[in-house]
Amino acid sequence: MATLLERFLRRFIQHGDLEIETGSGQTFRIGDRTGAPAGVRFADARSEWRLLRDPEFALGELYMEGRLTLTRGDIYDLLAIGVRNIEAPNSRWVAALQRTRTALRRWRRNDLVRAGRNVSHHYDIDARLYAMFLDGDLQYSCAYFEHADDSLDQAQLAKKRHIAAKLLVDPGHKVLDIGCGWGGLALYLADPCEASVLGVTLSTEQLSLAQSRAEERGLASKVRFRLQDYRQITERFDRIVSVGMFEHVGLADYDVFFQTAARALKPDGVMLLHTIGNTGVPAPTNPWVEKYIFPGGYVPSMSEIMPAIERAGLKATDVEILRIHYAKTLREWRDRFMAHRAQAAALYDERFCRMWEFYLALAETVFRAGLNVVFQIQLAKDVEAVPLTRDYIFERERQLRARESAERPAHDLSSAGTPWR
Amino acid sequence: MATLLERFLRRFIQHGDLEIETGSGQTFRIGDRTGAPAGVRFADARSEWRLLRDPEFALGELYMEGRLTLTRGDIYDLLAIGVRNIEAPNSRWVAALQRTRTALRRWRRNDLVRAGRNVSHHYDIDARLYAMFLDGDLQYSCAYFEHADDSLDQAQLAKKRHIAAKLLVDPGHKVLDIGCGWGGLALYLADPCEASVLGVTLSTEQLSLAQSRAEERGLASKVRFRLQDYRQITERFDRIVSVGMFEHVGLADYDVFFQTAARALKPDGVMLLHTIGNTGVPAPTNPWVEKYIFPGGYVPSMSEIMPAIERAGLKATDVEILRIHYAKTLREWRDRFMAHRAQAAALYDERFCRMWEFYLALAETVFRAGLNVVFQIQLAKDVEAVPLTRDYIFERERQLRARESAERPAHDLSSAGTPWR
Repeated sequence: MATLLERFLRRFIQHGDLEIETGSGQTFRIGDRTGAPAGVRFADARSEWRLLRDPEFALGELYMEGRLTLTRGDIYDLLAIGVRNIEAPNSRWVAALQRTRTALRRWRRNDLVRAGRNVSHHYDIDARLYAMFLDGDLQYSCAYFEHADDSLDQAQLAKKRHIAAKLLVDPGHKVLDIGCGWGGLALYLADPCEASVLGVTLSTEQLSLAQSRAEERGLASKVRFRLQDYRQITERFDRIVSVGMFEHVGLADYDVFFQTAARALKPDGVMLLHTIGNTGVPAPTNPWVEKYIFPGGYVPSMSEIMPAIERAGLKATDVEILRIHYAKTLREWRDRFMAHRAQAAALYDERFCRMWEFYLALAETVFRAGLNVVFQIQLAKDVEAVPLTRDYIFERERQLRARESAERPAHDLSSAGTPWR
Repeated sequence: MATLLERFLRRFIQHGDLEIETGSGQTFRIGDRTGAPAGVRFADARSEWRLLRDPEFALGELYMEGRLTLTRGDIYDLLAIGVRNIEAPNSRWVAALQRTRTALRRWRRNDLVRAGRNVSHHYDIDARLYAMFLDGDLQYSCAYFEHADDSLDQAQLAKKRHIAAKLLVDPGHKVLDIGCGWGGLALYLADPCEASVLGVTLSTEQLSLAQSRAEERGLASKVRFRLQDYRQITERFDRIVSVGMFEHVGLADYDVFFQTAARALKPDGVMLLHTIGNTGVPAPTNPWVEKYIFPGGYVPSMSEIMPAIERAGLKATDVEILRIHYAKTLREWRDRFMAHRAQAAALYDERFCRMWEFYLALAETVFRAGLNVVFQIQLAKDVEAVPLTRDYIFERERQLRARESAERPAHDLSSAGTPWR
């Protein structure tokens, strides 16, 4: 048994420093002994078989179940070794599994029922859990680190400011926020940007917290939130923003997404899409992530997004590619999560904690390696809706920064409901 | 006869104000009478037939031959009306012609022989012609207007500076310029950027002028020029830049282009591709442009470029979409060309002048409407080869601006060989 496992792992892991202990107590060391070392122990032979049969899926499950434990380094170190070797010659059966998954994914549509269920799976998790690891404003997407030593709260504020600047939001604008989360960006667009905002979400947990935050901040007249699928939007808007929601749309619905946006956007409107992107050729979602974290989720390559934009008659007017920012964000999230691990275990259980840790660590390695990035795609119908040079972004950020500090402390996070901090 | 022409034109031209005089002297007026009016006269019935049979192709030819003349407004006004109506329901035969052209284009490769011939067609035209309408540095690509009232020379200098800043060129860097034209950008990368530059072109006219300019500027040791196809490059470079050349590569060779670039780029290298782009769904080259101006040329949609980038293992790290800048550039070019029309006619003939005027006016209308833009795609292998936020671009531009003015007058154009100005 160990021989097959060892052969498989030696083939897949060419770089890095990894020590393996099998269920029967044999040990071997693989890789070129470079980088941070990691060591793992399999609980039993059955766990080794499970990894061999479907490594991409089983690794996460074995870790969750405690059947694969770390004897050296942590789960991040282990996954970082995996990512370093991702371009190694895959075993044929891994490649075949990937092809099958890709084929299946293309045909699965996230209809209204499935979309709602998918969102509930992840976002109706107790808000107390999110408050444990997110910033005070509950921004559950890539932060924007203007300076290397910015705190997470500063970088999340900078992200909202950066998006507002690119959206060219002016007082009185009608703005649609598709996938509004716990409402942080919508509130920012209302104050300090002074827009009139509609945020839609499919998560009842998010809706209720977003609404109460708007009331607490005295912004309920400027920001409305609705439990609604984006496909059911019928109004028209000056600005549309969607942050970290497109990952849930699914390939089969990209045309619907952009056609809905094009219908909802006024002729001189501006839209900003902020989504995780794959820098490589299209690839299926990791099956473990698909099952445990984001059912229905998909990370698109640019080559998959652009055709739908072109068909919808929208014009890309700027594409920023945020690199490393999400790796930094995820590291912050994981550090915070680990600091609150005991509370998380009390709320759920150890298995949940290991699942969450695995998810945050896996995502970080993928962004750190540049396999995933964030695409910020600015869109318009009229190419003159956006200034000709990008300096307006910096100028608007400067203005917003001044308004933020004039009106209230930049980090007034008291309404975010974070009893632990 | 006039009835069929009228029916066709009424169907195609819904917006604008256009007066038609047929070869037999009948007149009619079409459109909704909005915008700048234009009027045309057909020389004879045969010209009307030619337009009906293949309007996209025949319009330019009839204008060149003097068989279609303007009775009101100029050629720009006429073409602007055409572009305004581009989304009108095309006649079925126009759509069928377009489909055939698209299908043919996909299979035509620009092999080494054809690529050389295509380039000669356009760029071995007497350099005196280009000097008549380009800026003093002979920049034959979209300028970058930092301010609305910048002169063409200022905007072309700003373009070179903007590209150098995004390339993160440092002194001593080895830079490859694919499609170097008359050498202006390569010279800028050598001075003030202090890089060591190789520029390749397929035009003997461009090569010889570029070489003599390098010698005149005392930069021959820092800038080499070669008559070479990009596919024959074997060296490796810190930086690669290609400005206004990708339009000649042709769809069938995008993989070859990016794979060649990936091979020639060092692991921590940065590349900048500056190319005209189509904001809509993929569309064939206008057949008149294909025949008379850019044989083998193609304006790609983003959805056609990105798959090849992903397959080559390059990662897009920034995509700027320059809108309107090329319309402004083309207007400047056409104004200059018209001011030197008599000299151009002496060098060639009236037919050539009408051809050139048609080309510049057509291109301007297409950019003005936002159907075409310029994509500036920054590429890297390692996502950390480029800083995390875009402010380095502005900072480097500031530094370069200071070096330009310290070393020599910013517009020292004496070596460009422009005897007429």
